[in-house]
Formats: sequence, C-alpha cells, structure tokens
Amino acid sequence: MKSTYSFEEGDGGNRKLLGGKGAGLCEMTRLELPVPPGFTITTDVCTDYYRSGRTLPDGLMAEIKSQISKMEEKTGKQWGSKDNPLLVSVRSGAAISMPGMMDTILNLGLNDETVEGLAGKSGNLRFAWDSYRRFVQLFGKVVFGIDDSLFDNVLKAKKKEIGAENDSDLDADSLVDITRKFQTICQERRGSGFPSDPTEQLELAIRAVFDSWMGERAVVYRTKNKITRDVASGTGVNVVAMVFGNMGDDCATGVVFTRNPGDGSRQIYGEYLQNAQGEDVVAGVRTGKQVHLMREEMPDSYRELASTCEKLENHFREPQDIEFTIEQGRFYLLQTRSAKMNAAGMIKTSIDMVSEGMIDKDRALARLQAEQLEQLLHDTLDPDKSSGHKRLAEGIAASPGAASGMAVFDVKRATESGRSGNSVILVREETKPEDVPAFFESAGILTSRGGKTSHAAVVARGMGKPCIVGCAGLKIDYASSRCITADGSTIKEGDVITIDGSSGKVYAGSIPTIRPQITSDFKRILEWADEAKRLGVRANADTPESAALARQYGAEGIGLCRTERMFNGSDRIGLFVRMIMAQDSEERKGLLEELGRLQEDDFVKIFEAMKGYKVTIRLLDPPLHEFLPNPEEQAARVRSLEDRPSDGSPAASERELAEARTVLARARELVEVNPMMGHRGVRVGITYPDIYRMQIRAVFEALATLHKRNVEVYPQIMIPQVSSIDELDHIKRIFDEVREEMEEKHEKNLRVNFGTMIEVVRAALTADELARTAEFFSYGTNDLTQGTFSFSREDVEEKFIPEYMAKGLLERNPFQSIDRTGVGRLIRLCMGLGLKRRAELEVGICGEHGGDPNSIVFCHGEGLDYVSASPHRIPIAIVAAAQAAIMDKSKDGER
Amino acid sequence: MKSTYSFEEGDGGNRKLLGGKGAGLCEMTRLELPVPPGFTITTDVCTDYYRSGRTLPDGLMAEIKSQISKMEEKTGKQWGSKDNPLLVSVRSGAAISMPGMMDTILNLGLNDETVEGLAGKSGNLRFAWDSYRRFVQLFGKVVFGIDDSLFDNVLKAKKKEIGAENDSDLDADSLVDITRKFQTICQERRGSGFPSDPTEQLELAIRAVFDSWMGERAVVYRTKNKITRDVASGTGVNVVAMVFGNMGDDCATGVVFTRNPGDGSRQIYGEYLQNAQGEDVVAGVRTGKQVHLMREEMPDSYRELASTCEKLENHFREPQDIEFTIEQGRFYLLQTRSAKMNAAGMIKTSIDMVSEGMIDKDRALARLQAEQLEQLLHDTLDPDKSSGHKRLAEGIAASPGAASGMAVFDVKRATESGRSGNSVILVREETKPEDVPAFFESAGILTSRGGKTSHAAVVARGMGKPCIVGCAGLKIDYASSRCITADGSTIKEGDVITIDGSSGKVYAGSIPTIRPQITSDFKRILEWADEAKRLGVRANADTPESAALARQYGAEGIGLCRTERMFNGSDRIGLFVRMIMAQDSEERKGLLEELGRLQEDDFVKIFEAMKGYKVTIRLLDPPLHEFLPNPEEQAARVRSLEDRPSDGSPAASERELAEARTVLARARELVEVNPMMGHRGVRVGITYPDIYRMQIRAVFEALATLHKRNVEVYPQIMIPQVSSIDELDHIKRIFDEVREEMEEKHEKNLRVNFGTMIEVVRAALTADELARTAEFFSYGTNDLTQGTFSFSREDVEEKFIPEYMAKGLLERNPFQSIDRTGVGRLIRLCMGLGLKRRAELEVGICGEHGGDPNSIVFCHGEGLDYVSASPHRIPIAIVAAAQAAIMDKSKDGER
Repeated sequence: MKSTYSFEEGDGGNRKLLGGKGAGLCEMTRLELPVPPGFTITTDVCTDYYRSGRTLPDGLMAEIKSQISKMEEKTGKQWGSKDNPLLVSVRSGAAISMPGMMDTILNLGLNDETVEGLAGKSGNLRFAWDSYRRFVQLFGKVVFGIDDSLFDNVLKAKKKEIGAENDSDLDADSLVDITRKFQTICQERRGSGFPSDPTEQLELAIRAVFDSWMGERAVVYRTKNKITRDVASGTGVNVVAMVFGNMGDDCATGVVFTRNPGDGSRQIYGEYLQNAQGEDVVAGVRTGKQVHLMREEMPDSYRELASTCEKLENHFREPQDIEFTIEQGRFYLLQTRSAKMNAAGMIKTSIDMVSEGMIDKDRALARLQAEQLEQLLHDTLDPDKSSGHKRLAEGIAASPGAASGMAVFDVKRATESGRSGNSVILVREETKPEDVPAFFESAGILTSRGGKTSHAAVVARGMGKPCIVGCAGLKIDYASSRCITADGSTIKEGDVITIDGSSGKVYAGSIPTIRPQITSDFKRILEWADEAKRLGVRANADTPESAALARQYGAEGIGLCRTERMFNGSDRIGLFVRMIMAQDSEERKGLLEELGRLQEDDFVKIFEAMKGYKVTIRLLDPPLHEFLPNPEEQAARVRSLEDRPSDGSPAASERELAEARTVLARARELVEVNPMMGHRGVRVGITYPDIYRMQIRAVFEALATLHKRNVEVYPQIMIPQVSSIDELDHIKRIFDEVREEMEEKHEKNLRVNFGTMIEVVRAALTADELARTAEFFSYGTNDLTQGTFSFSREDVEEKFIPEYMAKGLLERNPFQSIDRTGVGRLIRLCMGLGLKRRAELEVGICGEHGGDPNSIVFCHGEGLDYVSASPHRIPIAIVAAAQAAIMDKSKDGER
Repeated sequence: MKSTYSFEEGDGGNRKLLGGKGAGLCEMTRLELPVPPGFTITTDVCTDYYRSGRTLPDGLMAEIKSQISKMEEKTGKQWGSKDNPLLVSVRSGAAISMPGMMDTILNLGLNDETVEGLAGKSGNLRFAWDSYRRFVQLFGKVVFGIDDSLFDNVLKAKKKEIGAENDSDLDADSLVDITRKFQTICQERRGSGFPSDPTEQLELAIRAVFDSWMGERAVVYRTKNKITRDVASGTGVNVVAMVFGNMGDDCATGVVFTRNPGDGSRQIYGEYLQNAQGEDVVAGVRTGKQVHLMREEMPDSYRELASTCEKLENHFREPQDIEFTIEQGRFYLLQTRSAKMNAAGMIKTSIDMVSEGMIDKDRALARLQAEQLEQLLHDTLDPDKSSGHKRLAEGIAASPGAASGMAVFDVKRATESGRSGNSVILVREETKPEDVPAFFESAGILTSRGGKTSHAAVVARGMGKPCIVGCAGLKIDYASSRCITADGSTIKEGDVITIDGSSGKVYAGSIPTIRPQITSDFKRILEWADEAKRLGVRANADTPESAALARQYGAEGIGLCRTERMFNGSDRIGLFVRMIMAQDSEERKGLLEELGRLQEDDFVKIFEAMKGYKVTIRLLDPPLHEFLPNPEEQAARVRSLEDRPSDGSPAASERELAEARTVLARARELVEVNPMMGHRGVRVGITYPDIYRMQIRAVFEALATLHKRNVEVYPQIMIPQVSSIDELDHIKRIFDEVREEMEEKHEKNLRVNFGTMIEVVRAALTADELARTAEFFSYGTNDLTQGTFSFSREDVEEKFIPEYMAKGLLERNPFQSIDRTGVGRLIRLCMGLGLKRRAELEVGICGEHGGDPNSIVFCHGEGLDYVSASPHRIPIAIVAAAQAAIMDKSKDGER
C-alpha cells in the first residue's frame, strides 16, 4: 500500500485519501498552477497510526526519504545542506476542512548548519535567524506541547532589553540569542537536546500532526460540527517545500476568497501582508491590507492572482479560499479549498453561478449548507430602539447578526457563564483555535485585532454567530477584566453590551432585535428547492402567530400543534389547575367547557392562518402534575401560610391555607418517579376522558365555524404516547361519538382525520395494528430516541452525552441528529408494517429532528411524506428536502 | 350459522364454541350417561352480542323455540304447561372454567300457572312454592340486579313472624306470601310486572348470563387468572331441563371429585345433601355429608356414581369434578369438568395415572399447571415453635400451607389492608364470588361454614392460599368485628392469628413457618420434566445461600448474579457510600480495593455452590444515588444536626454536620428526573471505570482461587444497560486489560466469557453489532418492557395498569407475562440479528419473566438457550420448559 503521493501523483478528486488540503495541492499541480513541490502522507496512515497504538507504519520513513529526493531534484536544494538547504512546511489536512484545528509547522529542516545556508542563499542573516527562531518556537509548541507564553516571555524580555517595540525591530544577534533560549526551553521539556537532524525533525512533526487529530480542540470541533468517522477518519500530512513571504519587500503572503464571503459578490476579497509569513495573516497578529491595494503595490502578482482565481473557480465550479505566497516576486499557491461563506454569501453565489452558466440549479441547491440558512433568519437590531444607546466602538463587521450580552474577557469564564445560561459576548484581543469551545457558548464575539480572515472571523461566520474583529479602539486589560474605549469609557466584565456583526458597531446596554425578512435571493432558492423536493414541509406551531410565520417561511400546513401550550397562558393556567383540582365531575365539566371555548377560539385562528392546508392537532400530552406546583415549592407555600401572622382577615387566610393544602395533597398524589414513562399522553386521556372529549369537540366546533365562513381547512387529530391499538381504539370511540354529535348539531359532514404519534417503541413495533385505526402516523423522534436508548434527555444530554462524545462512544447527539442504526432501524420496521396494512397511510415526523438536515435526508430515504419543524427551521427543512431529492437523483444517475 | 346445539348434536371436543360446561354435557350425552335433555347457545353468540351493542342475533329465539320443542319431546313435559311444566336451568359456561364468576338461574319457567303443575306433578305444594320463591329471588338478583339482602330481609321477617328457625321450617302458605313479596320487589325495580311468560323469562336470563361475562367479578377473575380473549372470547349458555334434588328424601344433590383434590389419592371425594338443590352444597349454606356415607344411605345411587366416575376418568384421562342430582331415586349428571386440585394432588395423580397406564409421561407433565407448583414450596408451621401457641379452633383443612396475619372480618377492609401491605387472614362465615378480590390480598382464608367444595375452599386451593373452612367452633359477629371461639376466647379484628390449611388448626399469635422439602413425587416429576425440556434453567441468585437453594431445586447454573446486592449488607453499604463520596482517586482506590476483597470472597463462595456450572455475574447496575440517602431525608438530617443543642462535644458534631452536608450536596448533584433512563448500568461503569475494574478483577481472582482448589466453574461477566457496541467495546478493553494482568499474575489461562444484557431497546435493535463482541446475550425483560411501553414500572404498575386491565386495554400485565406482540417482536428481531452475526451466541433471559410459565413457552419457541428465575420459581420453570417442549412435539406430530 502506497503511503505517500507527490503532488504530481495524487488524484485531486480523492479527498478522503489525501485530505482536502493534499487533494487541492495535487489538483492545482495537475492544473499546472505554481505550487511548490511536495507530497502528501495519506489519511490511511493516520488511521493505521491509531490502530497500532500510535506507531508509524514500517517503511513510511523510507518512502518519505524518496519523496524528499524528488523535491531536492525539483527545487535544486538539498535536505540538511549547509549551502542551499531544502526547508519544508508540515501541514495537516483532513477530508473535511477543520480550519486551525490541527497543527502546522513551518521552516522545518533548520538547524545550526542549515540556518547558515539559508542566510547565505537569501543574503539575509536576520531573516534566516528569524525563520529559525519561529521554527523552534512552533516546533516546541506543537511537538513538545510547550506553553507559548514561555517563548513569549523570552521574546518580550529581549525586546525590553534592547528597547525594541515590534518583533521586526529585533536584530540578528538578538534572534540568535532568542533561538538559543528557545532551544533550552525545549531541551528542559524534552530531557534531551533539540533535534537537529531534519529527518528526525520531520518524523516528530508527522507524529505531532497525527496526534493533533485526537487533540481536544479537534475532537470538540468534529463533535460540534457533526463530522463523523465515516466522512473523516484521520488527517493527511502535507510536506511542502518552503517558500518565503518574509524575505523582503518583493515578498508577500495573503489569503483571499474568489468571491466576497460576506455577501457573495463577485470580487477577489481578502488580505495580504508584504514581507510576512502566512500565519501572521491568519492569526491576525498583524492586520492585513485589503487585497485590492495589491493591484497598485504588486501589479504583476495581482494579475497572476486574479487569473489563478478565475482558473480555480472555473475548474472547481465553486468559489475558492486561497493561500498564496510571493517569494522575491515569484507567485506560489499554497492552498485552495471551497470558500466558507455565510448563508447570504452562499445563496448569492448559488444564484450568480447559475446565471453565469457555471452550475445548474441542482448543484446550486446541493452546495448550500442547509443548517447555515438559519443565519438569515437571525435577529438584527431594531433601528427604532437603537437611538438611545451609546456607541462604544466600531470594528470590522466580520459575521452578521446582532446580539446582546455580558462582556466577558476570559475564555474559560465565558464558557462557564454561557453554559450556565447567560448571554455572553466574548471580548478578546484576538482568538486562537483553543478558544473555540467558548465560541459555542457565546452569543457573539468581539476582538480588538485581526481582519475578516482572522481566526475569530472565520470561526464565527461558520457558526453564524455575530462577530466584530479589528476593533482597534478597544484597549483590553485582562488583568483587571475591563477595557477602555477610544473615548475613555470603561467596559467592566459583566457590563451588558450589544454588538452588530453586520455593521461592526458596539453599543452599551441591551438593544432589542428584530427578525429579518426573507430576501429575494433567499426566496428564489426556496422556490427552486420547493420544485426539487419530494418531502412535504410542515410546521410545529401552537399559536396563530407562529402559524402565520411558518406560512411566510413556506410551511405547507402544521404537523404538530401542541394543545397543552394553549393552557399555559397566564389567563388559562389557573382555569386548568382548577379543573385538575375539581372536587366533582360537575365542577370539572363546567371548567372544561370554559377551557373548550378558549381552545376552540385558538383553533379557529390557527385554521384561518393555515387555510387550504392540513393542521395536525395533538391532544393533551404532559402529565397533569406538570401543571401543578412541585410538591417542595407548594409545601414551602403551605408552611409560609401557616406561619403568617394574623392580619385581620383570618377567614380569607384560612381558605387560602386550605386551598394550598389541597393543591399540595394533589401534587403529592400525582408525583412520579419517572415522569417520562408515567401517566401522560393518551394515558391521561383514558383516565380523564372528559379532557380529550373537550379537545376533540373544540376541533370540530372550530371546523364547523370555518365551514360557515367557507374557509377550507383539513384538521387532523393526533393522539400522543400511544403504545397499543387498544388505547387508540378507546379514544377513537370517543372521537366517533363526538363526530356524530357534532355532525348532527351542525347538520353537516365534518371531516377530521384521526391518527397517532409514533413515539413509544411499542407503537413502532406494532405499527401494523395501529394502522388499522390510524389514518396517519407522526414520528415523535424525541421520545422515540429516549425510549430506544433509555436516555432521559433531561438527565443525560448535559451530563453524559458530552462525556460519551468526548470518549468516542457516540458520534452524534442522537437528540440532534437521528440515530440511524438504532432508531432508524425501528422507523424502517414501522414504515414497512404500517404501509403494508394501509397503503395510503400518511407518515411524517414532528420531533426536533424534523428540522435537522441530516435527519431530513434520512426521512426522504425512508419514504416519509413530510417533515415538520419549528417555523425558523422551515427554510432549512425545505432546502434539506431538496438536497435529499437531488442526492437521490444523482445516485439514480450513477446506477 | 348455527347458534344452538342440543346435547346430542354438540361436539364435546369443541370447548371453544360450546364452553366447558356445554362441551361436557354434550360429551356425557354421547357417552350415554344420564344427562337431562337440553342445549347450548354458543360462545360465538356471546361475542356477537357484544359486537352488536348487546343485542341478541336475529333468529336466535326461533332456534331456541325449536330446541325447547325437542326437550318437550324427550321429557314429556310442556313449556309453560299448568299440568306438567318443563322447567329449565340457565347456566353460563366459558371455554375456560370460571367457577362461580358468572350467573346461573334455576327453576326457570315457573309462574303462577306452572307452579300449580309442579305442585300437582310432584304432589308437594311446599316444594313447588319453595322452587318458585327461589326462582324469583335468583331471577331478581341476576336479571334485575337486586341486592340479595332485600330478599333476605323478607325471608327473615317471615321466619320471625311464624317462629321458624330454618328455611325448611317455612310452610307452603308462608312461601306463597314470600314469593309475592319477592315479585313486588322485582316489580318496583323493573317498573313493570314480574315476567310470567317462560320464553320472556328465558330471553331475559340469556341476556343476563351474557351480561355477566363482562361483569366486574368475571373481568377481575379473568385478569387475575390471565384468561385472555384468544382463549375465551365469551360465555356459552346452557339450557338444561330441571331435575330436582329437593323433592324428598329419595332425592339428593352432590359434588364430587373422582380423586381427592387435596392429596390426589384415588377415592371418590366430595359431599352430598339429601333433599337439597345443588347450590346449597356449592354455596356452603348447608354443610354436606362426606360422599362415602352415601354408600350406606343410597347404595344404588352410590354404585351408579362410582361407575360413572370411572367411565368419565377413563374417557377424559383426567380426574373429574362432577355435579349430580338424584331425583326420586333417579341419577342425573349435571356437569363434568377436569378437577381443580392443589399442586400436590396434581403431581400425585400425574404419577398415579402413569403407573395405571392411563396416560404417558408427556401428558402427565402437560396437564400440570406449572404456576401452581409454587404451592409446594410454600411455608409450613415450624413444629418446634408452635407449642407455646394457643389453639383457638379447628376446622376442615381445605387448602394447604400456613399463614399468619391480622384477622379481618370485612371483605373490603381485608382487601384494603392487604393491599397496603399487611398480612391479613380473611375470617368469614362463608364466602361468595364477589369476595374473590379479597382472596388475592389475603394471606389466608378462614370460614365458619362450608365444606371442602365450598366456594372458599375451591378458590383458595386454586390460588394456593392456606384455607380452613367449616370451622364451626367460631361464632362471628360482624357488627362488633369479633368472633368467639368454642372455649369462649375472643378474636378481635386486628388480632394476629395463624392458620394451618394442611391441618385445619387455628392458633393465636404468629407462628414461624418453614420452607418445605421437595417430596419424592415432586422430584420424580422434575426428573421427567428435566428429560423432556430443551431449555436450560438457571437461577437469579446473589448469595451463596440462594445459590445452594437454587441447586437443590434443580437450577443448572446462575443466569443473574446482581453484584450491587452484595454492597447492601450492613457491613458494606458504609464502605460503598464512602467510595462514592471519596474526595480523590487515591481514597477511592483504597476503598475499592477493600470492596473488591469482599466481593472476591462472595464470588468464591457462589462459584463453589455452583461448581460445574456457568455463573453469570452482572456488574454494578443501579445509579449511584440509590446508595445515598434521598436529598429530602438528608436535608432533614442536616437540619436536625444544625438544631441539636450543644452536648459538650461540639467538635464531633461539627464534623458530623460537615459530613452530612457533603453527603447532601453529593445526593443533590446525583439526583435525576427520570432515574430509570439516567446514569446507570454501563454508563456508571464508563464514568467510574475503577468500579468495574474492581469487579472484573474480583471475578478473575475468585476464579484463580477455585482453579487452585481444582474446582471447575465457568464465570461469565455481563454488562447491564448497554445501548451500543461502543459502550460494550469500551468495557471490553478494560476487561481484556484485567484479564492479561490476572493471567500474568497467576501464570494461568483464566477463561471468563463476556456478554451483555439486552434490556435497552437499542441493544435489541443493534444486536448484530453487539454480537461482534458479546459471547452471550441475556434479555432483561423488565427493563425491556419498560422501554418498549414507555412504562415506568414503579409509576404505572399500581396506578394505571389495573385501570387498563379493567377497561380491557391490556390483557395481561406485561411485567408478569411477556408482551408477545410488542416486546416479543423486538426479541424475535434481536435473535435473528444476533445469531446471524455469531452462530454460537448463547441467549437467555433473566428478567422476572424467566419464571413465568407463559413467557417460558415463548422463550422456548424463540429458540433461547435458557431461562433464569429466582430459586423458588426454578421447579415451575423446569416444568414449564418441559411443557413447551411437549407442546412443540405434539405440534410436530400434527403436521
């Protein structure tokens, strides 16, 4: 088995074997673009490395030696030579891009001898030692795991000693001294000398890259981004001949997008730095110049860059994200990959590329990340309510959307505070890959340094979090946990600020936000998706308002209307509790009638909002004790009433106390050990049939009302928590009685479908029986997942699911993305049984998975009729449904 | 479709269509035994009756008319005739015998005219009116649902009026008067006159019998006895020409068994009464005479009875329970059915009938009710400890076994007290079918009247509850809730007494009991069963003692050893809690080592008790919070420590308080919303790997110890609560590490199998994956049932499962008998997946279902290798396993 491929040999289409970066380098080489020579170690080697307990396969180093020889030939330089040394960079690259998550080492091959060669060849002693210094620092950090601050302290001390302000003010002698000190640090850590043999350096570097694949950062990133073993099983390693952007002013390095990733407009977009190495741009250490300035400063290179961009786009039919270096006027490409953009950018480029004839509509849809589209439905600042708020600062608008929260200056504190439910704005000078966990927990990110391609900007955009970078007006003092704005105001940790990632502005206090309208581009995409998809998309909506919003976003009906939410209004909960507490059936009946009228009114409004569509109404689901105070709280209330000093109205307080005691007794009576698996759903309907009767009657009454107004609507009644046909039939009899009563009363046929949730495992297992009575099924995959795993979501999701994912025991959180192996097998079984019994059975899903793109692909594949998702997930669901259909088509094509 | 069959027409083998009683009557008629003419209305008519909303099918009454005509021909009597009237009894009879659970009406056809005919024909006016009076009373009770006490009051008043002591002292005139008053009671209830038309009477009676099928008594009986719709879907109705045992001293009625149901010995056993109707014997109103006395009193009839008994036994190859009536010297058979016996009787008759050559071993095994065998393992009084206890009374030993409990004289109070966990002895003059619910809740039953075939005796024997009847020395006063014994002692309600159903003796106070030894008959049966069965039978045993007991009962290994129970000893729980509370891993390690040594010692003893067999050890299963006090209790403890007045040792109490607070904090941290689906089983093993490591090590150490002693044993380690292969593999790695460590230490190969519980739905669904690593599966059907139904056993079993069963929404409690439709389908799926992956996979069951005969049949059918049950269920499991194999064989024979 071949372990390495030179860039000429590698198949640029095989990202799985070569990793994204390696495949890109091979493909560019094949296109005869100016790529430095080099080779890729395959991802299979990484997999082997882990399988064999972190050992490199036999023969690998020999193969690498021969690859190095080829590089020597092509570059004319020699490995380890003190005259004209071949130096390399060692870069990770998995099948799925994980920017910044794994490690890179530059200038590898330098030692006390080769540094002389580099100095001689470049004629620049300072450059050579600066490179050596950087190499030792990076190698120490990556290979020996040494904390960067140890190196930084040496650097700072030296600058202070010689009165230098910037790194660039350090002379060659200082750099020699620093390099020696760096090597001593490494030696102390390692227990032996800093490795001087380039091949030993390379082997250690390769191991370090492989190790970084299972580093905490990378594991967290894959987990959060749902990158599973089947799509990326390890990282490749790319060994590339070094080219230098920091050899003088005819040198530069830059990162550009072939189109603007913020809005998708067609312009080369990005930053470059003269006389710098690439990491300076990426890390945001120095703020880069806008790339269009290059046209003046380095016109030849700019022309070469522009034509390269066009060539790459035409080849990949996808905007690219490119890294280049100019060494003494010579242009080199170091990387190309599909550009990550925000949702607006993706949509614009999809539409543009179709207009340009570059791609067709299917490809335009397929390239979108459905999940990302939620960004477009993100909040913006309410302009009417921003006026009173003081503007504290302004930076570069790096990721759109607005957010308010407490300013927190520490990564760990931000993570913890966010996790415990606070809205947090992470405020830092710059961010690093190890800070990513805090991004997930923050509402927004604000940095004082860096540009649009800095780490903070790229990561925040990927996540759809509001982000402002390069906000130079802020002086952050970590020690005192505060920062001073340009005009001298102070932001202390915990002060609430608002950032607008679309304008780059930072405000004091919390500014209300508004939901955005759907743009015409987005509408166009949704129209295309609508044509392409097979699955229906309905909404989970419980109020007339959310029903209207769902329609606006393209929902074709309501797949889940949770009737219990209607009882939670402040005007109703009291009524409902009184019904639970009713002493006799007479009293209960009266209260139920009152509740029925309210519910009927809700139904009328929801039906109107959904006219022409199906509306699935789920009868009461939660256990009754959810509506009562918990026994501990109520006991405390009783105690406080008992202790209350007489206030002149003893009668009133006596009554109050008696009532409180009755509620306490009832709450205690209803308490359950495992409420998830207790007296809920249809079980409550069976014990208290009057509740379901009231709800069913309200649906029919509402339907009759709309009939009178000539509004077409198709209500469906759905029974929750069903585990057997006997339960379903029991309720069906009540349903039939009410229907007859209503049809008689209104002298009209009233058509309401009758169906069941499939959320109890046994329901899925006995679907053939249920389909005798049920006209439709709707998978309640939240509960089905709980039952299948015996996972109580409340108990496990925060507790051991993260632990399981960190330990590799779960690839995905099964509550976010459907578990195909277990729950999926159950659903497949259920589909077969149900459809065999009733061919016209309508089947949908209304668990949260209904809005998850990966789960939607599953639903498409299993032949469901529709998915139902919360309103703000509807556009995502529509696009994901289209992508599923397109995938299917292309598979058919392949056959 | 034919709705009725005369006894000549009916197929005596078709119990399903004709009901047990009807089939018996037809079969006896075919055997030319003296059965009065009559016919059976099929059980299908009953099913129709309910399907059509309680209406009788068209044409039924016409068919009945023609059957009545045939009866007129055979008897020479006329329907509704005032000269020689044909009277009938109307009796229920389902496919499965439900003694006393449904209604019977005698003397139907009587009215003011036919009563004259009966008087004339019998020459006995008093007899005629007594029959009429009885008919009106029974009809009023059964058809119109009138409370018996209304009639009783009239009867009592009349007796007082004329100074009569017994019913038999009432003269004809009094009976006329009583009959009229009874009719008035009926008229008031019905709102119109008492029906005089015999055909109308018959129709009403048939409806009443059908209605009684869904009466509460019958429903409860079916539920408790697990009689499901597939085996008995309705009752038949038998209309039989009346014969009278109460027309004079040449008349009699009796109930006998062809063998003694108490011990199985070969003798006609039972009671008869001269000049009485059958119900007098059954209800225990009058205490019958032992049947052997008949040999002297009515020698001809006795001979006829004896030869009939032999004929029936030879025909049915099963001891029979017979009802007969002698009318003016003529012998009639009114019923035959298989005799219900206690377990000892069944075993003895099985062995005897094989010796007699009447049946083969398979049939001898198949006829046993496996469930019933537990009786034989029931307690008897410890003779050494009975001496000091006063004997209060002595009655007829009606159902063996001994029990102590509070005497309760009221059926309802007994039910409630028993349900709330008290040991109760129900003490009554006699019992009625409506009292059966109290039987279930009582430890034993004691009546002052009735014989061995009285209601109390029959029902108690069926349930295996100790019972004494006919304890004439007791005078019960319901009003004051006490009774006086023959020697003048008083038993007040709530006094503790002990009854010995094997000797008939009643003692004051609570006498310790001892477990019985297995008799040689029982041993023989178990040997036969052992030969016949295919399934292995193992024990759920957690201590050396229960392991030894299980071996004695025939267990072939341990299927489930719950290691957590070993931590619950008073000397260990403290250690375990300290381990949970340990501040650091060092402290935890020390405590685990200590626990490990204790556990190792337990394993050594259990392995020794099971030498030569497999012992399956399940690692820690419950969540850790189960070992801590619950937060509320602990909070109370903290409060009380806080409030404790200083007692001179402030330091000690400070430390105590601090400790209590720490425990409270930990208990709060560990608390879960749904502990059933939370952090337990393998999930605890993953979070605290040192616990599992300790347990695995203890197993290997114990094995090594036994190797040194040359004791063969085959330990297996089983992981609970597994939901995925990743979890199982994670623990397998720990297992392998420990094995290597132990094999090195002991310089020996140590073989321990590694397997998994299948108790999480997802485990069953992904059995193919699990079987990659698991060498065996064991179904934990308790949890699997919970997960499949989303039933939390603690919450639903007492709350709505009874409601569901009463409403017909559940046929069986799925925690007692496996749910074949749902859980069964899952198990079938799992078997297929698991065995496909690993053909030699060993599969068993260790949930409570492993001791349930019905579930054992299922396990046999699904191809499991073994069942595992608690020690006292082992004999039941062995017999049930044999029966399953025999059933299989006979099915093969049929094919």
